[in-house]
Amino acid sequence: MSVKKLLQCVPNFSEGRDKDKIEKIVDCFRGKEGVKLLDYSSDEDHNRSVVTLVGEPAPLQAAVVAAMGVAAELIDMTKHEGQHPRMGATDVVPFIPVKNATTEDAIEAAVATAKEASEKFNLPIFLYEDAATCADRKNLATVRKGQYEGMAEKLQDPTWKPDFGPTTVGTAGVTAVGARMPLVAFNVNLGTDNLEIADKIAKSVRHIGGGLRYCKGMGVALEERGIVQVSMNMTNYQKTPLYRVVELIRAEAKRWGVPIVGSELIGLCPMEALTMCAEYYMGIEAFSMEQVLETHLME
Amino acid sequence: MSVKKLLQCVPNFSEGRDKDKIEKIVDCFRGKEGVKLLDYSSDEDHNRSVVTLVGEPAPLQAAVVAAMGVAAELIDMTKHEGQHPRMGATDVVPFIPVKNATTEDAIEAAVATAKEASEKFNLPIFLYEDAATCADRKNLATVRKGQYEGMAEKLQDPTWKPDFGPTTVGTAGVTAVGARMPLVAFNVNLGTDNLEIADKIAKSVRHIGGGLRYCKGMGVALEERGIVQVSMNMTNYQKTPLYRVVELIRAEAKRWGVPIVGSELIGLCPMEALTMCAEYYMGIEAFSMEQVLETHLME
Repeated sequence: MSVKKLLQCVPNFSEGRDKDKIEKIVDCFRGKEGVKLLDYSSDEDHNRSVVTLVGEPAPLQAAVVAAMGVAAELIDMTKHEGQHPRMGATDVVPFIPVKNATTEDAIEAAVATAKEASEKFNLPIFLYEDAATCADRKNLATVRKGQYEGMAEKLQDPTWKPDFGPTTVGTAGVTAVGARMPLVAFNVNLGTDNLEIADKIAKSVRHIGGGLRYCKGMGVALEERGIVQVSMNMTNYQKTPLYRVVELIRAEAKRWGVPIVGSELIGLCPMEALTMCAEYYMGIEAFSMEQVLETHLME
Repeated sequence: MSVKKLLQCVPNFSEGRDKDKIEKIVDCFRGKEGVKLLDYSSDEDHNRSVVTLVGEPAPLQAAVVAAMGVAAELIDMTKHEGQHPRMGATDVVPFIPVKNATTEDAIEAAVATAKEASEKFNLPIFLYEDAATCADRKNLATVRKGQYEGMAEKLQDPTWKPDFGPTTVGTAGVTAVGARMPLVAFNVNLGTDNLEIADKIAKSVRHIGGGLRYCKGMGVALEERGIVQVSMNMTNYQKTPLYRVVELIRAEAKRWGVPIVGSELIGLCPMEALTMCAEYYMGIEAFSMEQVLETHLME
């Protein structure tokens, strides 16, 4: 049986208001063999659309490159306004390993996509996160700093020469193409209305505060419910599993006499992020994803 | 998007020694559009082969009927010897809902398969478990009681008139075709070598002893490891989830001062049986299988 590699790709486009333009971009992902459009959503305030795709590397790359061309043609960044930071018509394109695929496969797809799109459409492109060519370019926020309006100047700085394409900026702006692990948005709810406690716990469990390597987090008040939560992005659920952050929050919350009252998964989450938790809490010995029926249904 | 119904089917054939005959039967499941052969294994002592299939109802039924015909032709039950109870060349054929399918869909497939196979091959067939036409026929062990050798007489009893086919028994014997929920084989290991404790706990958590509705179980010694386990079949993981039996065993084991030291999943298990446990232990609010990425990859 041939093993198909599957990648996820979540391109973000700087158009969230003009339905006609949005549909023309999204059409690049419809009816393509080997590419599945899972979801897309637009935000008018952000003036931005986020598309979720899954597919085999080659057809996925081809569809994304085609959409980048359509976006470059339809979106004029000199006229773009919106709340979300952005620097290009196609703003950011992360590739994510999903099945039978590694981070290396995602990096390969990112590099191939960046190269082809820059050549076809004369776009300046940075590689970021796991695909970054130097430490400075790992963090998307650093790459995008200055936003579209600052890019013409930024690209003249030799340390910010794009990985692909020209050092000049057109109406399509600049794109960041990268590779990363699936991100799991996971919140843990606490039995208190004291936001300070959620904040303190968030700071102690997140990476920058001395906590878990692949955890970003902050305290958030759920005002209607009169409780607070530790709101997190888990950036590598395989190396920092969800159960670990739950148990660490439980331990930290104990000192405040506060119980965990629930949790929330936001958006999509890989099955393995959950089976790892079942495995931990029930102590399942020698567990393998091959024991999950659905693993065999996707081949 | 059209929603495909998927059923699992696990036919058991009374041949576990003659590789040539086994392959001829299994060939009925190869290269069939809409049918996937997940696994097959043969046991020489039992003289029996178990095939695991997944597929859409119509092609799955067609392939199973074809295999029942091949088995009826190749297997002579008058000469069959083996340790496992059996009554037919194709001994038992359970259909199991897997995805976008209900127990009713599985019953429908069972009835259609039983009808077609009995007509084509003149086979006496009983419907069992969820497909049973009366309470007496729900339990496979009751249906199969007397085994092949006792069937000629049993079928003369009006209460044991087959649901389909003749009341006479040929060399292909009698088949039970049914519908059931996926069965999860799940064992919980205890930190003691005292088999009596495992037995007592098994009796208290299993259905017939006053325990959980969809749990069968017994105590088993793992002699090499010097521990014992509660070895279980969970017959409806949606209504009696795995975490519930783990926590009940934990509570019962406490009175003996015995800890749970681990657990084991045997064979395949539906993803939902595990995500339900993650949901319970982490208290995930408003969780839905739609949040699992893989749910969307199987469509």
